[in-house]
Amino acid sequence: MVAPLKVGIAGLGTVGAEVVRLIEAQGNVLASRCGRGVRVAAVTARAKAKKRGLDLRGVVWAASPQALAADPDIDCFVELIGGAGEPALSAIETALKAGKSVVTANKALIARHGVRLAVLAERHGGALNFEAAVGAAIPIVKVLREGLAGTRINRVYGILNGTCNYILTRMEQERLSFAECLKDAQRLGYAEADPSFDVDGHDTAQKLAILASLAFGTKLAEKAVFVEGISSIMPEDLQAAEDLGYRVKLLGVALRTETGIEQRVHPTMVPRSSSIAQVMDVTNAVTVDGQGIAPITLIGPGAGGAATASAVVADIADVARGVRALPLGQPAARLVATQQAPMRRHEGGYYIRLMARDMPGTAAAIARRLAEQNISIESIVQRRRNGAGGTTPARGAPSMPVILITYATSEDAVRRAMQAVKRDRVIAGRAQLIRIEKN
Amino acid sequence: MVAPLKVGIAGLGTVGAEVVRLIEAQGNVLASRCGRGVRVAAVTARAKAKKRGLDLRGVVWAASPQALAADPDIDCFVELIGGAGEPALSAIETALKAGKSVVTANKALIARHGVRLAVLAERHGGALNFEAAVGAAIPIVKVLREGLAGTRINRVYGILNGTCNYILTRMEQERLSFAECLKDAQRLGYAEADPSFDVDGHDTAQKLAILASLAFGTKLAEKAVFVEGISSIMPEDLQAAEDLGYRVKLLGVALRTETGIEQRVHPTMVPRSSSIAQVMDVTNAVTVDGQGIAPITLIGPGAGGAATASAVVADIADVARGVRALPLGQPAARLVATQQAPMRRHEGGYYIRLMARDMPGTAAAIARRLAEQNISIESIVQRRRNGAGGTTPARGAPSMPVILITYATSEDAVRRAMQAVKRDRVIAGRAQLIRIEKN
Repeated sequence: MVAPLKVGIAGLGTVGAEVVRLIEAQGNVLASRCGRGVRVAAVTARAKAKKRGLDLRGVVWAASPQALAADPDIDCFVELIGGAGEPALSAIETALKAGKSVVTANKALIARHGVRLAVLAERHGGALNFEAAVGAAIPIVKVLREGLAGTRINRVYGILNGTCNYILTRMEQERLSFAECLKDAQRLGYAEADPSFDVDGHDTAQKLAILASLAFGTKLAEKAVFVEGISSIMPEDLQAAEDLGYRVKLLGVALRTETGIEQRVHPTMVPRSSSIAQVMDVTNAVTVDGQGIAPITLIGPGAGGAATASAVVADIADVARGVRALPLGQPAARLVATQQAPMRRHEGGYYIRLMARDMPGTAAAIARRLAEQNISIESIVQRRRNGAGGTTPARGAPSMPVILITYATSEDAVRRAMQAVKRDRVIAGRAQLIRIEKN
Repeated sequence: MVAPLKVGIAGLGTVGAEVVRLIEAQGNVLASRCGRGVRVAAVTARAKAKKRGLDLRGVVWAASPQALAADPDIDCFVELIGGAGEPALSAIETALKAGKSVVTANKALIARHGVRLAVLAERHGGALNFEAAVGAAIPIVKVLREGLAGTRINRVYGILNGTCNYILTRMEQERLSFAECLKDAQRLGYAEADPSFDVDGHDTAQKLAILASLAFGTKLAEKAVFVEGISSIMPEDLQAAEDLGYRVKLLGVALRTETGIEQRVHPTMVPRSSSIAQVMDVTNAVTVDGQGIAPITLIGPGAGGAATASAVVADIADVARGVRALPLGQPAARLVATQQAPMRRHEGGYYIRLMARDMPGTAAAIARRLAEQNISIESIVQRRRNGAGGTTPARGAPSMPVILITYATSEDAVRRAMQAVKRDRVIAGRAQLIRIEKN
């Protein structure tokens, strides 16, 4: 019988404490499934005295993450401190250089330093597992890294941020504004006091960079991701989406194009019948389009202590089992650098919502400007509010919403057409543009 | 550089030919991802002369599956012959006994002989991979075997048969009968000339037995699965399901109960809002309920040459990478035998559709019989057809449909109540019962 895997856990917050509990509760199952036991041998956390309801008798308390990572009695270093920098980074480097395996749930750190850490892991023979960094309990890292080796992936996209999906779900179902739903999300603990990292799309961008690297062999680089958040989405967009057979989701999308891998995060219209459109509240989902096969979608809890801990323990189990997959699916030295996709060259369908001035010739003017850019219209909805006359803005003619869905075109063409419409003075305010992603 | 993995493929039908093509097309990617190349070194098939559009220059043609399995120049034997018995079984045994790894897409063979083959693989050190056997391109075998080691699984259920899901989808969407939709499925190649293996639930049962073994450590045994097919489902059941917020799917369900693992296949009412209810046509899906976390659902193509081949190649890639997971997730010797669940003890909600005689006292009589068995009613719909009088059967009073949804109760209680109602002569024909599965 092989000796048990000795695990050192840095960070005993919600996730860390749950990992200790799970390893205890699942002990026999883990031993049976991995061919060897798993034992928490040492831990470290900022406040040693804090009550956590954990039985840590027989567990060494290390002085620091660094000391824990260097401890020769540890086989596997589990980093649950968080943050893209210190002390997590140095501790992980120390562990990898010592040939230990590392398990982390830290998406920011992997997104920023993943390539460097993968090089260290490959050189010294340890594993570097980070299943919990994207989609928590959804095993998407393993699936992309190992499970789809037989599939040429053309696109990966998903709902990777529960906060945004919760807000969009509530806005749609209860016809509330972004601001109201954000406030509720904060009250429920789904959003931070400073929500910008989530609602502006940066959290999604970090996760997308990780998925793109695994799927397409790109170098992890958050700055290669075009990012647009959800704060400009209005209840009338969600209503219009419903009328037209779509739903609005904040998607992270990475796809193979003729000029390279395009990575982008933005509010997106997805067909209401797609699997991803059904994903509501804080749930996450990822869809993988493989060459010649129907899409594969994974749906599940994308956050939370128990869900994150379950992914961390699965990663530890792989270490115990002796699996040493390449951290980023292929040798880090072979990963290809990518640039941020120039969105003006992005091609796809567009949802356009305008407040058109209610006067003769408006529709014709808008149609002409789109035609000039060779943009074909799939559908158009023009509706007087409440069936009565349009609303009257402070100055000028009353206005009413016009909603257009275009066939595939370029973003450049759409932006030119909107500038021309604006110059024609047939619309009030700015046009709302939402990209459409077909399944 | 490690020498390439030499693969021998037995069976060059749609899947086998596609595997050869994929290994050729993905060659560089596979080498990069696995740390070694993958090469088709030898093949065998019944008709050597058949045109397949494959470039098999430099590939040895083996005289038989048996000869291929025994060939010392082969590292990995890929069985794509099909059938639960010979020649697939002996060839796999030969390969495993020689210490080779085996990849197969053969669910019938794994369901029937999986434990014996797993013992051989464990003893001789080869891998035994069968991702394609369940849900084709959906990586559910890997996810259950390796990816959810940190999760205590309470229930696994899914839509595992594309033929049945296609028929139910068409019946619902076009209000057609089972017989009509079956005919269409046959015309489109989704159903066999003898469709009983699919529509009676046996295909689902074999796949469920495999999932249950991976999730719960049960001995693979198709006969431990209670099976009921979809041929009794009527368009009016699908209509009633829609009215009541449900959808009917043929599910395979394996769950942990106080008395052991219950495995069953039957038409099931699932909440319309669940991920699994959205899965239409030939698509497959599996949901895993883990302790303390939200469900994880995987959706994707459950059949087809390209989807199956992609799973086979992913299995081959794991062999090349050196991953040797226990075939059934834990040592075969530790798997626990299970009995077929006595369905009379099954607990859950029920959908009941009756043709009630339209005469005074009918509703009271039915309600009394249910109350006698302590069955509580969640909803009841009683509708005169077309708003006019009921239909008049050959003899007796006119009848009209009554639909009941019960709260959780036991199947025994429901069956007793229905017998009593029948004796009361207040219904015509037999009652339609469909079990409800809550998410």
